[in-house]
Amino acid sequence: MSVEDIPRTIEWVRTDGDTNAPSGFPALLVLDQTKLPEEVSYLAITDWRLVIDAIKSLKVRGAPAIGIAGGASVALRAAEFVFARDLHPKDADDFESVFVIDDRSFDAEMYLLGIEHAAQMIKTARPTAVSLSKSVDRVMQSIKDALNRGLDASTCADVAFDTVSEMISTDEAQNREIGRIGADLLGYNSTVLTHCNAGSLATSFYGTALGVVYSAHEQGKIQNVFVDETRPVCQGARLTAFELCRAGVASTLICDDMAASVIASGKVDAVIVGADRIASNGDVVNKIGTLGLAIIANQYNVAFYVAAPTETIDTNVLRGCDIPIEERTSDEVLSYSIPELNVFNPAFDVTPACFITAIITEKGVFSPANILNAL
Amino acid sequence: MSVEDIPRTIEWVRTDGDTNAPSGFPALLVLDQTKLPEEVSYLAITDWRLVIDAIKSLKVRGAPAIGIAGGASVALRAAEFVFARDLHPKDADDFESVFVIDDRSFDAEMYLLGIEHAAQMIKTARPTAVSLSKSVDRVMQSIKDALNRGLDASTCADVAFDTVSEMISTDEAQNREIGRIGADLLGYNSTVLTHCNAGSLATSFYGTALGVVYSAHEQGKIQNVFVDETRPVCQGARLTAFELCRAGVASTLICDDMAASVIASGKVDAVIVGADRIASNGDVVNKIGTLGLAIIANQYNVAFYVAAPTETIDTNVLRGCDIPIEERTSDEVLSYSIPELNVFNPAFDVTPACFITAIITEKGVFSPANILNAL
Repeated sequence: MSVEDIPRTIEWVRTDGDTNAPSGFPALLVLDQTKLPEEVSYLAITDWRLVIDAIKSLKVRGAPAIGIAGGASVALRAAEFVFARDLHPKDADDFESVFVIDDRSFDAEMYLLGIEHAAQMIKTARPTAVSLSKSVDRVMQSIKDALNRGLDASTCADVAFDTVSEMISTDEAQNREIGRIGADLLGYNSTVLTHCNAGSLATSFYGTALGVVYSAHEQGKIQNVFVDETRPVCQGARLTAFELCRAGVASTLICDDMAASVIASGKVDAVIVGADRIASNGDVVNKIGTLGLAIIANQYNVAFYVAAPTETIDTNVLRGCDIPIEERTSDEVLSYSIPELNVFNPAFDVTPACFITAIITEKGVFSPANILNAL
Repeated sequence: MSVEDIPRTIEWVRTDGDTNAPSGFPALLVLDQTKLPEEVSYLAITDWRLVIDAIKSLKVRGAPAIGIAGGASVALRAAEFVFARDLHPKDADDFESVFVIDDRSFDAEMYLLGIEHAAQMIKTARPTAVSLSKSVDRVMQSIKDALNRGLDASTCADVAFDTVSEMISTDEAQNREIGRIGADLLGYNSTVLTHCNAGSLATSFYGTALGVVYSAHEQGKIQNVFVDETRPVCQGARLTAFELCRAGVASTLICDDMAASVIASGKVDAVIVGADRIASNGDVVNKIGTLGLAIIANQYNVAFYVAAPTETIDTNVLRGCDIPIEERTSDEVLSYSIPELNVFNPAFDVTPACFITAIITEKGVFSPANILNAL
């Protein structure tokens, strides 16, 4: 059992005719996280719209992972134009009348508009994590740069494909760096408490908060990890517990309302969570429940660390309260048949910088108040 | 819709031959709370051992309710001796050779020992709530007093029966008084947050924390009640939401990890919970998750009230940390198939007095530090 036994969250390949798409078309292989821990199965997505569905339905989740998936969706859209004749044989002529993609009459402006339209739709799939729009913008920019260099549609789509590939490998490298840096903050026989899943499954591989745990585990420092089940979607019970088991890290599952008691008992050396967006003032937006944990850790002088790549920092927002909090449907919460029941289901909360000991990034460890120094 | 539409938790009657027991035998009718909210159904229990099962399996739960059930179990045991010939026709002679219950040769000491043995077993059904052992002791004492007055076994059993009836009516009266007193602490348009079920279903009727809500609701003071679902057994989602709907009180269900965000947003005027045991120093042991809520409410200067009858105060324990915390089985927490998973499942936590604004009892409102003044 080791970290390498955790199934990869995302793979980004070219089909060889084993999907609905023509051979050579890009495909995003997504580990379907709604089926974990019972079933490890992958979806092969070649339609950019189905990536949006996968993000909305939490088949792929976790800020870094949905960033990559969003970027891939843009690249799939770019490829769709190139493969229009193969994908839409019946109305290929109509299609090409708008987006003529042979070199003679390639309408770069129309091509770009078509992809831009898709990019805007992808960005709205989930509003809170900033990495989604940043990644979409990054792939868009790579296409624009290619167009500006006079490259044709097919080559532009290749550039988009390569940008996504690079994002995947960069993400993993950054996570391993976050892990290496964060592990230095933990002593031997450490017990960590974590919330939700900021693990390998939330990223391309290795994870952010759990990246720190894996790196410390490799150094023999981890005694135990308390895993909040993380209602309502139970990413802790289903995903974090699953990947810690695969990696051979000792863990103990608790319900979210047990964390205060566990922390008060002195059993926890550090709380480590991920982040969906970090405001310029160091406020952190992360999975609902993070705020309560931070207040409780603060009360008992237990270190509260946020582990996230610098990409999570959004310089466009000053304070956490300026970040949109996604509210999800009541059926995630309701398990019992009281149909007249009102439900409030915010997916994230804002943890003020004052409750956070430090933010661990691939660039080093920062006080929340100085998080902009990481950029 | 009104409080009176909430089904009664417990009824204490004499059978007229509609159970396995002979006509005239006592029967504890218990609303099976494991079937709520889908099904309102009652168990008619005449075997004292099945009361223990009902308590252990959470068919009846809530400190005041399990106290009454425990007392009833003692009374059932006392009646069992009187009805031995009817209950155990095959070995009635053997039975009576030990516990001769006719007036000529009634062995009061053996009779008492037999009931005392049962009482000790009942007390261990659940270790945390003090009302269980207090109620058991109260019914035992009523039997001892009757024996000391020279009464026969049959009359002693009647005395035990009446003691339980009185406990039920006293509990309801105290709850209505707690409600009346507590409602004065709330202003108009109040929004309350509560955890677990300290409602009518946790008592003989009306409830403690929810008694305050019902009384304030009758005065038109309640705008909304945020209901923590209260993992792992979901007494909030299943029971509190159910009875608030029946009573016509507006409520909003949230997951436990959302409470911090709701409180931080300024939406909550007061947090009100019940108690399973109160130590002499004002520390409160209540459903797991109470501690975290108290710390969070304290952080945001939101009033944190504990509503409980004075019976909940245990002068035998100085501090909360001296109170035994029941740990329940992992299957309550596990919903997913990772068999190798460790689980920690404490049913209660200790909230230090410093985080509690006031304790509302039937004798008045007390600062936790002065809770002994309530006695």
